Amino acid sequence: MPAAAAEPLDGPLTAALGEVARAADAWLVPGSLCERGENGELFNTATVFAPDGQLVASYRKIFPWRPFEKYAPGDRFVTADVPGVGRLGLSICYDAWFPEVGRHLAWMGADLIVNVVKTTTEDRGQELVLARANSIVNQVFTVSVNCAGPVGKGCSIIVDPEGAVLQETSGDTPGVLYQHIDFGAVAAVRERGTAGTNRMWEQFGPSDRPIPLPLYDGRIDPRSWSPSNRPAN
Amino acid sequence: MPAAAAEPLDGPLTAALGEVARAADAWLVPGSLCERGENGELFNTATVFAPDGQLVASYRKIFPWRPFEKYAPGDRFVTADVPGVGRLGLSICYDAWFPEVGRHLAWMGADLIVNVVKTTTEDRGQELVLARANSIVNQVFTVSVNCAGPVGKGCSIIVDPEGAVLQETSGDTPGVLYQHIDFGAVAAVRERGTAGTNRMWEQFGPSDRPIPLPLYDGRIDPRSWSPSNRPAN
Repeated sequence: MPAAAAEPLDGPLTAALGEVARAADAWLVPGSLCERGENGELFNTATVFAPDGQLVASYRKIFPWRPFEKYAPGDRFVTADVPGVGRLGLSICYDAWFPEVGRHLAWMGADLIVNVVKTTTEDRGQELVLARANSIVNQVFTVSVNCAGPVGKGCSIIVDPEGAVLQETSGDTPGVLYQHIDFGAVAAVRERGTAGTNRMWEQFGPSDRPIPLPLYDGRIDPRSWSPSNRPAN
Repeated sequence: MPAAAAEPLDGPLTAALGEVARAADAWLVPGSLCERGENGELFNTATVFAPDGQLVASYRKIFPWRPFEKYAPGDRFVTADVPGVGRLGLSICYDAWFPEVGRHLAWMGADLIVNVVKTTTEDRGQELVLARANSIVNQVFTVSVNCAGPVGKGCSIIVDPEGAVLQETSGDTPGVLYQHIDFGAVAAVRERGTAGTNRMWEQFGPSDRPIPLPLYDGRIDPRSWSPSNRPAN
């Protein structure tokens, strides 16, 4: 845990990343950084910068890669709006192994989940399956960006809302993926259904009863299922 | 919806299936059947028969394939114990598209999820991804048995707790898969970790706070996370 490198989000690293976005006149979701929290905790934090260099969102990883990763866990899901384009959902590495994360981001209206990853181990193969699965069950785009070799296992991947692989890098070779993404495809897939049939976010009708979810001491409430029925914050 | 074929679970179809199990001296999880419920509702119901022919468990599909499938939904997750071997979790077709199902079955102690399927549409490709993903995130075996051609798309699959494909049928060709399954592999994978590292059911420590899950009006409570910490029924 690089405590010496930790900074609060108003520190010089964040300012420098904002300058990168501003210089490129582009939205930027860089790899996650080591954030020093209000009480000195260290978080693994993803950030989103607007083309003017402003930090518009940050997300503290909820599922640190334990027992190896010593960061404190975050406690809330985070999305970021790109005005006129769509909504991003933020996810970091091991979060992808917990389907609760993608589920909540999609429910919060994310069209595309950015999963920033530093996987140096043999489980990148499983993560490629999970990137597709998280897209399929939530009908969202997934961009899973892994660290390339020699440190990471690479295999970055872009998946569409039906789980098709749009692009991927070759093994652990460093690479750049360019992909035009029509965020409207999310609504289109949900309207016509995955493979022309499956509309999971339209599952329930007015007469359906809640489904008890004892693991979560909660339930699926048909009245608040689907991103479009989500209660206002 | 084949209302004319519907029977309560003490009807002649169930008796005949029990006789098949008894004659074979084998555990039997046949394809699901059309159950007539106590109040005349029709359910898509999976069953488990012991080698003595007794019906030991039944599960009513929680996620009917709407809007095409008119069955009433079930309201509870179901597992079945095979004494001395392990615990089965029951899942039917479209249930696999909702990660909440596999999550709960694993949490209830299932070592192997049997997903009986009749997929006649082009989304069998997505289902093969989901069979692997549901195994990976829950560290359980998955057996996804689809109807073969000419009606179904086939591609039945057996997946291990790390997501590796143990066996699959070839396209929609009818086939029989034989697989020796060591249920102890579930505990072994959870102990050493997927790919030697990932122990998702051991994620939390005593100082962790609950993770709010607003979609479910619930939360992940670290005290009840993992199959081994599940409260008694």
